[in-house]
Amino acid sequence: MAAVALYSYDQLYQFTYKVFKSMGCSNEHANTASVGLIAADLRGIDSHGVARLSGYIRLWEANRINATPDIQIVHQTPSTAVVDGDAGLGLVIAPFAMQVAIEKAKNVGTGWVSVRNTNHFGIAGHHAMMALEHDMIGMAMTNASALVAPTFSIERMLGTNPIAVAIPAKEQPAFVADFATTTAANGKLEILQRKNADTPSGWVQDKEGQPSSDANILKKQGALLPLGSDREHGSHKGYALGSIVDIFSAVLSGASYGPWAPPFPAYVPMPENMPGKGLGHFFGAMRIDAFRPAEEFKEHMDNWIQRFRSAKPAEGFDKVLIPGDPEREAEHKRKSEGIPVVESVAEDLELVAKKFGLII
Amino acid sequence: MAAVALYSYDQLYQFTYKVFKSMGCSNEHANTASVGLIAADLRGIDSHGVARLSGYIRLWEANRINATPDIQIVHQTPSTAVVDGDAGLGLVIAPFAMQVAIEKAKNVGTGWVSVRNTNHFGIAGHHAMMALEHDMIGMAMTNASALVAPTFSIERMLGTNPIAVAIPAKEQPAFVADFATTTAANGKLEILQRKNADTPSGWVQDKEGQPSSDANILKKQGALLPLGSDREHGSHKGYALGSIVDIFSAVLSGASYGPWAPPFPAYVPMPENMPGKGLGHFFGAMRIDAFRPAEEFKEHMDNWIQRFRSAKPAEGFDKVLIPGDPEREAEHKRKSEGIPVVESVAEDLELVAKKFGLII
Repeated sequence: MAAVALYSYDQLYQFTYKVFKSMGCSNEHANTASVGLIAADLRGIDSHGVARLSGYIRLWEANRINATPDIQIVHQTPSTAVVDGDAGLGLVIAPFAMQVAIEKAKNVGTGWVSVRNTNHFGIAGHHAMMALEHDMIGMAMTNASALVAPTFSIERMLGTNPIAVAIPAKEQPAFVADFATTTAANGKLEILQRKNADTPSGWVQDKEGQPSSDANILKKQGALLPLGSDREHGSHKGYALGSIVDIFSAVLSGASYGPWAPPFPAYVPMPENMPGKGLGHFFGAMRIDAFRPAEEFKEHMDNWIQRFRSAKPAEGFDKVLIPGDPEREAEHKRKSEGIPVVESVAEDLELVAKKFGLII
Repeated sequence: MAAVALYSYDQLYQFTYKVFKSMGCSNEHANTASVGLIAADLRGIDSHGVARLSGYIRLWEANRINATPDIQIVHQTPSTAVVDGDAGLGLVIAPFAMQVAIEKAKNVGTGWVSVRNTNHFGIAGHHAMMALEHDMIGMAMTNASALVAPTFSIERMLGTNPIAVAIPAKEQPAFVADFATTTAANGKLEILQRKNADTPSGWVQDKEGQPSSDANILKKQGALLPLGSDREHGSHKGYALGSIVDIFSAVLSGASYGPWAPPFPAYVPMPENMPGKGLGHFFGAMRIDAFRPAEEFKEHMDNWIQRFRSAKPAEGFDKVLIPGDPEREAEHKRKSEGIPVVESVAEDLELVAKKFGLII
C-alpha cells in the first residue's frame, strides 16, 4: 500500500479555494470550483478531485484556462440553450449551465443545455445531482481528450465521455448513475500504475489493436476500449454511447469533437484544425411533475429501489447495489473520517502550495 | 444453414396489413403497425419483425392487446407529455407518442414523452428516425419483460431495454444507434438456438449466477447479462443504463416496471401486484436549430462521420463503422433483393395466414 495522508473536507476546501483565488478566480467562482472538485474526493472518485488540481493550474499557466470567464448564453429557446464558457474552468461553467437547464425546466417542463468553449468539469454526477432538490431528474455528460479506439480501430477517437443521471426518490437515497462509456475509466489505470499491476483483459489494447494488460499502454500509443471491450461483447454499443456524448456535448454546441477534443495535459499540443471551441458538455433537467405528481413518482422510486436492493444475490455477494450506493457510502465515511490522499498526490499539493505561497 | 424463403417488402407488408386488419385494427393503425413491424425485417433485425407477428396475435387472443385503442395524452407541459396507450399495439402507440414529441419540439425546442399501458413496439430505431426529416435528433427507448440479472444478482429484474438515438447529417447518411443495454440481445440467442450453437462467454449466466454458454439458458431460469458482462468489465454500467430506460419509460409514465413488466409470451402469466399499467416507452425529439443552425450542425456531422469512418482500422478489419451502417446496408439490399425469412418463421406465417383465411 502506498502511504496515505488524511485531510478533512474543510482543509481541502480551504486550500483549493485559495488556489483558485490565486489563479485570479472571483470568490464565487473559487467557491463553486472548489466544491465541485472536492465532491470527487468526497465521493471516492479520487482520480477526479485534488489529484487534478495541478493539471488545472498547468492549463491556466498555458493560457488554456481563463480564470475570469464571461460565461454567456449565446442561443436559446424555451427548453434549450447553448452556453459559451469563454474558456473558463468547467468546474464553474457546468453549474452555470445546469442552473440554466433547471430554470428552463421550471418554465416548460424540461431544459437542455449544450456547452462549448469549456474545460474539464470534474465528476459528472455532481452536476446532475443539482436537479434533485428541485424534484427534477438531472443529466450531465462531457466529451474529453481522445483516448478510446472505436470498435475495429487502432486510432484514439473519443474520450472516456461519461454520462451521469440523477433521479430523486422519497425515503430512499437518490439513484445516481455516473460512468465512463469505456470498460474502465482512465482513473482505474492510474491506480494500477501506482501498484505496478496489470489490467484485466478487455480494458485496453496496444497500438496495433492487440489485447494488452499493460496499465501504461496509453503512454505507448495504446487505447482504452469502449464499454463492451470487443465486438462480440458489445463494444459497438459503448462506442455508440461515447459518440452520442461527443455529439450532444460538442457538435450541438460548437465545441471541438472526436479526436480534436483539447487534451487535458498542458504539455500535449492542441490539435490542429480544431472544428470548434474547447471541450463540450451537455446537461438536462426534467421536472418530475411535468410527467406525474412528484410524490407519486418518488414513492414508486422507493418501491423500485427497495425491490432491486432485495433482488436475490449471486453466491459470494451480499446484496445488489443501486447506482450511487458506493459513492454515497464513501461520502458518508469521508465526511466523518477524513479524505485519504495518496502520497504522490499529497506531494503534488505541497508543490502547488509552494507555488502560490500557501499552506495546506 | 436453415432453409430460407424470400419475400418482397410489398408481399410482407400486404400480408401483415391484412393480419392487423383481421385483428380489428383500423386501416390507419394496420398501416402504421405493418410499416413499423417490417422495418425490422428490412433493417436486418430479424428477431423483431414478422418473426414476432404470431406472438402479437397470441397477446391479442389473450386480451392483452387492444386492437382498437383510444390513445390519449393524459398529462402535458409545453415540452413533455404522458401518453396512455389503452393497451394497444406498441407499434401504433410509439409513432403517436413520437409525433407528440416532435410537435412539442417544433414549439419549444424539445419534446419528451413517457408512455404507459402499451406493448412491444418493434425496433426502437424506427421510431427515433421519425425525427430526422424534421432536422431533429430523435430518441426512443422501452422497457421489456425481465430477462436480465443486475450485477451481483441471480434474479431477472430488467428487460433488454433498448436505446435508440438518431442524428441527422447533410450528405452523409444519418447516425442511428439502436442497441439493447445487454451484452447480447435476446434475438442473438435465438439465432444460436436454431444453429444448436453455444454462446460466447459473458452473454448469459445460469440460475446460480455461474458463467454459461448455453443458448437455451433462459428456459432454465438463467439470465442475460447487462452490457459489460461482469463487474470487472463494467456490467454495473449496463445495469445502470437498463435501469434508466426502465425508470424513464415506466416509473415516469405509470407503467409497470422492473420484474413486473408484462411478459411478451402470452402463455406466461401476468406478474402479480403490478405497480403500473402495461409496458412503458420514452421518446425524445430535439430540434437542431434550438441549439445552432441546422445546416451548420449537419455539415459538422458530415465531418464527424467522415473522420470516424477514416479512423485507422485494426489489422483484419476494412474500416470503422458508424452506428446505423449495417442496418442501412441491409435495408438497401433487402429492398432490391427481397427479405429472407427462415423456414420456421415462414411456417409460422403460414399458420397465421390459415387462422385468418389469408394467403401470403
